[in-house]
Amino acid sequence: MPTNRFVILTEGFSNPVTAKTGASVIRYRESDVVAVWDSENAGKKAIEILGAGPEIPVVASLAEAAGANTLLIGTAPTGGRLPDRWRAAICQALEAGMNVVSGLHDFIGDDEEFARLARQSGAEIVDVRRNSETGVSLGQPLGNDNLRIHTVGHDCSIGKMVVTLELERALKEAGHDAKFLATGQTGIMVSGDGVPIDTVVADFVAGAAERLVLRNADHDILLIEGQGSLAHPMYSAVTLGLLHGSQPQGLIMCFEAGREECGGIPGRKLHALSTLIEGYETAARLVHPTEVIGVAMNGRRLNEQQAEEEKKRVRAELGLPVCDVLRDGPAELVTAVLDLKQRIDG
Amino acid sequence: MPTNRFVILTEGFSNPVTAKTGASVIRYRESDVVAVWDSENAGKKAIEILGAGPEIPVVASLAEAAGANTLLIGTAPTGGRLPDRWRAAICQALEAGMNVVSGLHDFIGDDEEFARLARQSGAEIVDVRRNSETGVSLGQPLGNDNLRIHTVGHDCSIGKMVVTLELERALKEAGHDAKFLATGQTGIMVSGDGVPIDTVVADFVAGAAERLVLRNADHDILLIEGQGSLAHPMYSAVTLGLLHGSQPQGLIMCFEAGREECGGIPGRKLHALSTLIEGYETAARLVHPTEVIGVAMNGRRLNEQQAEEEKKRVRAELGLPVCDVLRDGPAELVTAVLDLKQRIDG
Repeated sequence: MPTNRFVILTEGFSNPVTAKTGASVIRYRESDVVAVWDSENAGKKAIEILGAGPEIPVVASLAEAAGANTLLIGTAPTGGRLPDRWRAAICQALEAGMNVVSGLHDFIGDDEEFARLARQSGAEIVDVRRNSETGVSLGQPLGNDNLRIHTVGHDCSIGKMVVTLELERALKEAGHDAKFLATGQTGIMVSGDGVPIDTVVADFVAGAAERLVLRNADHDILLIEGQGSLAHPMYSAVTLGLLHGSQPQGLIMCFEAGREECGGIPGRKLHALSTLIEGYETAARLVHPTEVIGVAMNGRRLNEQQAEEEKKRVRAELGLPVCDVLRDGPAELVTAVLDLKQRIDG
Repeated sequence: MPTNRFVILTEGFSNPVTAKTGASVIRYRESDVVAVWDSENAGKKAIEILGAGPEIPVVASLAEAAGANTLLIGTAPTGGRLPDRWRAAICQALEAGMNVVSGLHDFIGDDEEFARLARQSGAEIVDVRRNSETGVSLGQPLGNDNLRIHTVGHDCSIGKMVVTLELERALKEAGHDAKFLATGQTGIMVSGDGVPIDTVVADFVAGAAERLVLRNADHDILLIEGQGSLAHPMYSAVTLGLLHGSQPQGLIMCFEAGREECGGIPGRKLHALSTLIEGYETAARLVHPTEVIGVAMNGRRLNEQQAEEEKKRVRAELGLPVCDVLRDGPAELVTAVLDLKQRIDG
């Protein structure tokens, strides 16, 4: 990825869930972000609409994003489609010679008009989800030379990437050789590396996950970002290929407190965490045994007191450590990871 | 697919497992097959090397396959790659103006030399695995207006397609409106329709399976061909996307008696059938409840007496009907399907 000064397009979709890509780039690469582009919210700060970026202005036009050299598409809509209303914005950026970085399934670079404008202005189009992953998994045990921790979820879009990144930060601060392995467009934009696993041809998903692990095998602790949910009717294939391909020895179960319905499917109830833990462990064991070693609670819907009560309830119900990593930091999960490492090394 | 008179290329891979694509096209479309092309076995009949086609000659060269207008690539190697030694054979066919039908992951039509030769001679290249499936699953219950039966396996390449086709034949003979839904390259070649599910982008696997069901929803009984295995480290993502996307009310558990190791991964032991049944039912239930209603045994490694004993053993162990569909016909499975239909229509 080129050195970027981002203006992040979230026009019409400026909330922390739909624009999670933009919000996460702000959270983890704030110094690279010049502005958020959303005419409906111009004049605010990014934190007011996206939950991150207290100093990042929201602007009404590209002209106001002085110094930006890259337009970053800030959303991840269901199925990864390009909203119609963004065509003009992307054209304007490309005409001005700005690079465009996108994580959509619809590749910007495959669009004739966009490609022509980029050629004319010399702009670069980076479609983060484009990949040429071919080759099935080797299907051999990955062994215990490193510890592989994988974040899984009770649903999609509940903060698995954030948990994984916060774990990486805390483990590194404690002096461990830990590495975040991105598996989604946002994680790749944040970390500059990874594999867009949901866009890999189905036969090669486990292979792509395995290769991601193998080419990072020199680190002691690999933190593999999860995708979707094993119980999500749209995305479970991606989730299982990643789970089987990366052969984690430990799982962190991520959930959003107060979420009762499956993301993108109103009326579809989510399962109890205990049901999901059984589901993940049973499915994983068919290829490689693993266990849930801790729970990460996304408490964004709860106040301080509610969050404490919910953590207590889940701890009692599951007998596992529970953290809200953004509110409390991931200390309990770090301990769980290091305990597992000791058990495996020991 | 154009009207074809096939010569089936299996050169160097002529056994019923590696050349299962060719063997199945012979089994189910024998009247469309002119010859099998394998110089090492020239002079034999197809049945001697592929287990089907008592009247189909094996020939040493294209010139001996008089009347053939289509070269069909007869194997499905791991990962779907084109064996190097076949390049010359494919060039020869295309130069002669013969169509080429292939189920490999490496698309024949994307190869510059092949594409050029086809343009020059007017030959058509059909890459059965090519698809443009985009769009996630709707994630809504598919309901009980029809009965959806899905064949699943303890491993890959153990005869799920054959079981599904034999069930279709028997149900139709008994007067039922049953339809085989192909999900793999061989099934598509045999039935002329379907979706090459293992080549769909991972995010869209469940959606593609769901759409296959929805566009055939006017039939009473849908028989959805299974792929891979939930316990196969290479292919489990495909298997789960298909299982969740097609929402079967009933599963037929397929296994090959005497197989102890995972296909393509020497040394990797297969699980007990009871473990797999629990795995399939647990994983399926996260999206849509289902149950294994019968077992299909592939008895190709057993003699008559061994097959009877093995069926008896499995019946006693699992408490389910067990058929070897090629040896005995699928009568017990037909009964299990119709019993489930009655319970659901109830």
